[in-house]
Amino acid sequence: MQQDDHHSVLVVGVGAAQGLGAAIARRFAEGGFSVVIAGRSEAKLVSTVAALKTLSPNVSYVLGDASVAADAKRFVQAAQAIAPLALAVHNAGPNNPAPFLETTAASFEEHWQAHTLAAFHLAQAALPAMLERKRGSLFFTGASASLRGKARFSPFAAAKAGTRMLAQSLAREFGPQGIHVANVILDGVIDGDRALSLYPQLAEKRAAAGLLTIDAIADAYWFLHHQQRTAWTLELDLRPWSEEF
Amino acid sequence: MQQDDHHSVLVVGVGAAQGLGAAIARRFAEGGFSVVIAGRSEAKLVSTVAALKTLSPNVSYVLGDASVAADAKRFVQAAQAIAPLALAVHNAGPNNPAPFLETTAASFEEHWQAHTLAAFHLAQAALPAMLERKRGSLFFTGASASLRGKARFSPFAAAKAGTRMLAQSLAREFGPQGIHVANVILDGVIDGDRALSLYPQLAEKRAAAGLLTIDAIADAYWFLHHQQRTAWTLELDLRPWSEEF
Amino acid sequence: MQQDDHHSVLVVGVGAAQGLGAAIARRFAEGGFSVVIAGRSEAKLVSTVAALKTLSPNVSYVLGDASVAADAKRFVQAAQAIAPLALAVHNAGPNNPAPFLETTAASFEEHWQAHTLAAFHLAQAALPAMLERKRGSLFFTGASASLRGKARFSPFAAAKAGTRMLAQSLAREFGPQGIHVANVILDGVIDGDRALSLYPQLAEKRAAAGLLTIDAIADAYWFLHHQQRTAWTLELDLRPWSEEF
Amino acid sequence: MQQDDHHSVLVVGVGAAQGLGAAIARRFAEGGFSVVIAGRSEAKLVSTVAALKTLSPNVSYVLGDASVAADAKRFVQAAQAIAPLALAVHNAGPNNPAPFLETTAASFEEHWQAHTLAAFHLAQAALPAMLERKRGSLFFTGASASLRGKARFSPFAAAKAGTRMLAQSLAREFGPQGIHVANVILDGVIDGDRALSLYPQLAEKRAAAGLLTIDAIADAYWFLHHQQRTAWTLELDLRPWSEEF
Repeated sequence: MQQDDHHSVLVVGVGAAQGLGAAIARRFAEGGFSVVIAGRSEAKLVSTVAALKTLSPNVSYVLGDASVAADAKRFVQAAQAIAPLALAVHNAGPNNPAPFLETTAASFEEHWQAHTLAAFHLAQAALPAMLERKRGSLFFTGASASLRGKARFSPFAAAKAGTRMLAQSLAREFGPQGIHVANVILDGVIDGDRALSLYPQLAEKRAAAGLLTIDAIADAYWFLHHQQRTAWTLELDLRPWSEEF
Repeated sequence: MQQDDHHSVLVVGVGAAQGLGAAIARRFAEGGFSVVIAGRSEAKLVSTVAALKTLSPNVSYVLGDASVAADAKRFVQAAQAIAPLALAVHNAGPNNPAPFLETTAASFEEHWQAHTLAAFHLAQAALPAMLERKRGSLFFTGASASLRGKARFSPFAAAKAGTRMLAQSLAREFGPQGIHVANVILDGVIDGDRALSLYPQLAEKRAAAGLLTIDAIADAYWFLHHQQRTAWTLELDLRPWSEEF
Repeated sequence: MQQDDHHSVLVVGVGAAQGLGAAIARRFAEGGFSVVIAGRSEAKLVSTVAALKTLSPNVSYVLGDASVAADAKRFVQAAQAIAPLALAVHNAGPNNPAPFLETTAASFEEHWQAHTLAAFHLAQAALPAMLERKRGSLFFTGASASLRGKARFSPFAAAKAGTRMLAQSLAREFGPQGIHVANVILDGVIDGDRALSLYPQLAEKRAAAGLLTIDAIADAYWFLHHQQRTAWTLELDLRPWSEEF
Repeated sequence: MQQDDHHSVLVVGVGAAQGLGAAIARRFAEGGFSVVIAGRSEAKLVSTVAALKTLSPNVSYVLGDASVAADAKRFVQAAQAIAPLALAVHNAGPNNPAPFLETTAASFEEHWQAHTLAAFHLAQAALPAMLERKRGSLFFTGASASLRGKARFSPFAAAKAGTRMLAQSLAREFGPQGIHVANVILDGVIDGDRALSLYPQLAEKRAAAGLLTIDAIADAYWFLHHQQRTAWTLELDLRPWSEEF
């Protein structure tokens, strides 16, 4: 187990306080880490930091676009300025399914930039800091779409598949240098993360605990970061008990 | 999180105290569960129970062959006699690689019986007890060989692939009934589990923490069992940081 | 391309003339090979040979149980007695889905014997003959269940996963010795192969060409066997155009 | 089998006459199709067309950048102007491995554009023409890197994984509309395709037929296009017999 709770955690792709990024931030803030959250909406970041501050004083934010290299560097610098970076999480990106012939190249590219390129930038920015100390974790929020490209989901599936192979490649190169790379395969709809507004019919599933809950997902990130290096996980899936898959 | 630490845990496939089965048993015994270990060598079971008793009083054993249906039933009954069964772990089976044309049908079948059929029997015996309470966990110790059949490893690879598909099928049928089924993909050589006697050249890897350590693996079983049902893992891999894969 | 049309082909697991095994046999008989078909029902073998003889004189049969080592040896000897063995195909096995707790150990084992153990026996019997000539093909009829264990299908999924890993392991060991090992992943219901009697509702799919047709599948075996060794396929999937997957 | 040899085939990503793109073009030109090859180097296209014209008169070229939507449209229009488009092949893209921290974002993006985005553009341009006739094939040249991200290969692996999921998603959406989508997984070094200049040590492998040969690969594209729709392949792998994998 990494004894690093005086270190910093960077969560990229944080929006509203009820989203997954905020839940990951909360889990590590409660656990004693200094947490920096990064996202594109200052209003949401301010509001999320305010919500998290009630639990832990060690939360701050940095504004920027994860798909821009310079912003990813600023994110890492902001975390390092507080404490050595223990963990960087990439959690960003949209999922806008559509019939393929109604899918624009702009949408296809936007998914890749937000999911794949942003993960690349975060890795480029975070790894040098971690390699100096020969330790650190780099986690990506993935999806079952990376394993199974369903009709109408090609932008999301192609982007998450890219992120997944990036994670594999990084794990093979940097694991032996002490860096724990992991890809978390979410399978199912996340409760509270835009889901209920988009899919009102999910209310029934919610009542039956049939949605992925953000705090339960965040527990997995906590576990992964605290694995001993003699038994690291590169990939795990997470789905609600009642999910058909 | 399942609040069930007054319940019982059954670990099938336990040998020496320094093996993985014993480590899983120890993890749950220390966590407050009543633990029943099952295996084929009474001498080893007695000795392992003695070692575990120094940590927790709630450890007992039952002797039998996991690949025999009636024995699997006795295993479950022994655990249920102590407390409701919270978790059953199948952890048995050999791995005897050989050139294919020197591999006997008896060896091929023995691997299947120990890895696949025994997992089937454990599931048959444990699920009815769990379904009554609509909760419980059923975990299999798997291997990366289930995903990648290397030359000379067909008995082990074929058997573990069978176990893996059994786990998938069970997860899909029984997840929605409240049962958490998981398959733990071990990738690498386990320290202390026959490894060093068979492969003396591993001493160097061990010194560099390059072997899977049993306590680190056992932590993953503990984590899996305590996942909230809104974010269950069916499969995760575990490998030492320096493993080439 | 292997110039071996004066050689023999062995197809194990042949029943009725309208089944897949017979279609594979027909494809190679029409292509000029001497074909030996093997199965457990002499009545069906006689009738299938009679049907195939109208297309090619070079078809004979051998009776036996593919899951018995001695019978697999006899199958290979029967083919070798006619001409050097160019290709051995394992095509046997049942698929009897059921709720898991209604699945007997006997059924679980029967699936493994017919799908996995029989493939092992065929490989054991055929490889020595092929290795002498440093050429030959060994193909298994697989299924998408080997990649995806659905609820209620654990006997079939576990068995086919075992066959798949056997194929991988054999390909890695014997490819460099000139033997082409392949696993054909069927995904969908096969027209004419018990399907319509079991699933009368499939008539509509059939009318829309929505079933796997046996001659189209047999074409893939023909292609695989004739691949140049500089570009061998270990695995391909086959599904009807309208299949949901 | 599609009876369409009076139709056109478009191969995108063609360079020198000894490359894979040219071999695919040659295979279909010899088979009676009108073939249009597309690429970025007019000198290479002119020279390749000249070489192919000795075999078949029906070969022409169109110059452009496959990662630009308008060029992909022009490619398809050029083929359609000759005859209805039977098959479009995406075969483009670099593979420039490097230590991750020496990999530029520009290189990472260039791989994605050439492999993934270009495949997207080709699909967008070709599918409407094919859907009118409810038939046609769309094939992507893939790589084992899409299944396994090795250290130092993240740009290629991430890009090919994206292409692979794009193929899966398209197959699920357009298969039931009569379009055959396939992804060909190349595993190994291709003889003649820049390989020997980059890796002189491959000469020995070549002598032992240990490289993927382009004509053998092209045979697989021919086979895939001529599959009956009652047994379509979405994915197959191709590797030289002596490849370690």
